[in-house]
Amino acid sequence: MIKTLEWTDSGVRFIDQTKLPTEETYVTCKTHEQVADVIRKMVVRGAPAIGVAAAMGIALGIKNSKAATGVELKQEFERICDLIGKTRPTAVNLFWAIRRMRQKFEYFRMRTIPQIKQELIEEAQRMHAEDIAANQAMGRHGATLMPTSGGVLTHCNALTAWELMKDGIPTTVISDNMAGAMMKQGKIGAIVVGADRIAANGDVANKIGTYTVAVLAKEHAIPFYVAAPFSTIDLETSNGSTIPIEQRNAREVTHIAGKAIAPEGVEVENPAFDVTPGKYVTAIITERGIARAPYNESLRKLAEEPAVASI
Amino acid sequence: MIKTLEWTDSGVRFIDQTKLPTEETYVTCKTHEQVADVIRKMVVRGAPAIGVAAAMGIALGIKNSKAATGVELKQEFERICDLIGKTRPTAVNLFWAIRRMRQKFEYFRMRTIPQIKQELIEEAQRMHAEDIAANQAMGRHGATLMPTSGGVLTHCNALTAWELMKDGIPTTVISDNMAGAMMKQGKIGAIVVGADRIAANGDVANKIGTYTVAVLAKEHAIPFYVAAPFSTIDLETSNGSTIPIEQRNAREVTHIAGKAIAPEGVEVENPAFDVTPGKYVTAIITERGIARAPYNESLRKLAEEPAVASI
Repeated sequence: MIKTLEWTDSGVRFIDQTKLPTEETYVTCKTHEQVADVIRKMVVRGAPAIGVAAAMGIALGIKNSKAATGVELKQEFERICDLIGKTRPTAVNLFWAIRRMRQKFEYFRMRTIPQIKQELIEEAQRMHAEDIAANQAMGRHGATLMPTSGGVLTHCNALTAWELMKDGIPTTVISDNMAGAMMKQGKIGAIVVGADRIAANGDVANKIGTYTVAVLAKEHAIPFYVAAPFSTIDLETSNGSTIPIEQRNAREVTHIAGKAIAPEGVEVENPAFDVTPGKYVTAIITERGIARAPYNESLRKLAEEPAVASI
Repeated sequence: MIKTLEWTDSGVRFIDQTKLPTEETYVTCKTHEQVADVIRKMVVRGAPAIGVAAAMGIALGIKNSKAATGVELKQEFERICDLIGKTRPTAVNLFWAIRRMRQKFEYFRMRTIPQIKQELIEEAQRMHAEDIAANQAMGRHGATLMPTSGGVLTHCNALTAWELMKDGIPTTVISDNMAGAMMKQGKIGAIVVGADRIAANGDVANKIGTYTVAVLAKEHAIPFYVAAPFSTIDLETSNGSTIPIEQRNAREVTHIAGKAIAPEGVEVENPAFDVTPGKYVTAIITERGIARAPYNESLRKLAEEPAVASI
């Protein structure tokens, strides 16, 4: 199995997603600043992985701390959380991970510095194990919804096709503008996308283009599923309109491999995410179970379900 | 004004669309084989330009002919038309241009070889002038349909943004997967696309992704217009299902500037065009006027209208 990221004695090790699929290379971060960089530069991608990366970055920063008192350690903890929290704005798992590490930190405030360090490292590793268990649980829940015939369309980054092939799953790559034609030809039996943040009403922020796929799914009466760990659901955000959408550099649109493909000086839009209203979402698949409309009720109900324990 | 292509004494001159927008370079074809190559390799793009290029290629081949008799010239003419006709399958303007050149050739079969050569060259140049006049007429008709506020979205190749900027029109480039989000934000007042072939019932074959834009337009109640010269309308094709769709090389999807962006050996789909059913088309703008549903009637009626004379 591919390890997207891993806690090691010498630091946090990431597969470099910016190099896939041509090169399978790894980078090891020895400081929390390096982890922040890795998140910002999209060496690590995907909301759940970003969350775990953030937790490990915090644990790493605290592990490296020279603080002699609890007060100094707390100040350092806040600086680390602040830096990690400013890397990417949309994926809520990042803020969820910071909040959970903070709760751990507060809970252990009466213990010694070495104990706190050890507990934070263990908490980050636990979050990683829970993420893997959550993915497996989502897989089990999601499998019950998959069609018996027809392909499953997803909308994701370059890692996906490579991982599917590694798992021996027949995979066809299309470009974004072919999705409509493939659906019209009856080649798609279901759609499964991820999420960077899900609001309380079921509005879903995910990689730009997800909304287009959702509209196409509706037009072709194809079920549109969102698979995401429960940590992606942000019950404090009532609807998608208040989710911050990251705007990325215009060069991602105007240049390919350093070569201009659009005229110099032309205006460019480059939102990294869009928001799909809950009304387009057939079901949300989490490790705690499957939620369906009305999401204001079903998502709150899931919040009362027990979390999946780590393996 | 940019000259996409031009008949010159030394051959047919094309702006190299594969080099835009970074380089404004021109290639001059001295043989009809070179013209066929230029069409096949997409140095020239856009259905109407492909039609004019085909006519000029035929005129160039006949101009260069060493045939001593009418029978020899006719055989050579057929070989030239055959080669040009096999360059790209979807744009019907290519076949329309060949048919028109053939009619000219047949009509002048009683004249001398130098006269035939001269007449074919003039016919190709006339088709070019008519194309320019048709574009202006389409612009006049289309202008009456444009919204007073909001942007106009088009779905086209790299030349477009560059030409719009050269004409001083405020232009924003987005990637295909942003179209849905821009419409949801209310930024788009109308959509105008071109066509490579329009069937008698109003089904429109155009650059891949056009169908997706049409579905999004319907969902957002935005008018979806198709602008195309009348030569793009193929009344002999009853509906879109029989339009041949060109499949292009998988490397266009898997590689960027020679670098792999998809895993080796993965399956790939790469249709160059898709078909948008006429029910999604608000109106078809031609140089002869504007057609609306039911297209089986309105397009046949346009066929009875006089063609726009060249300027």
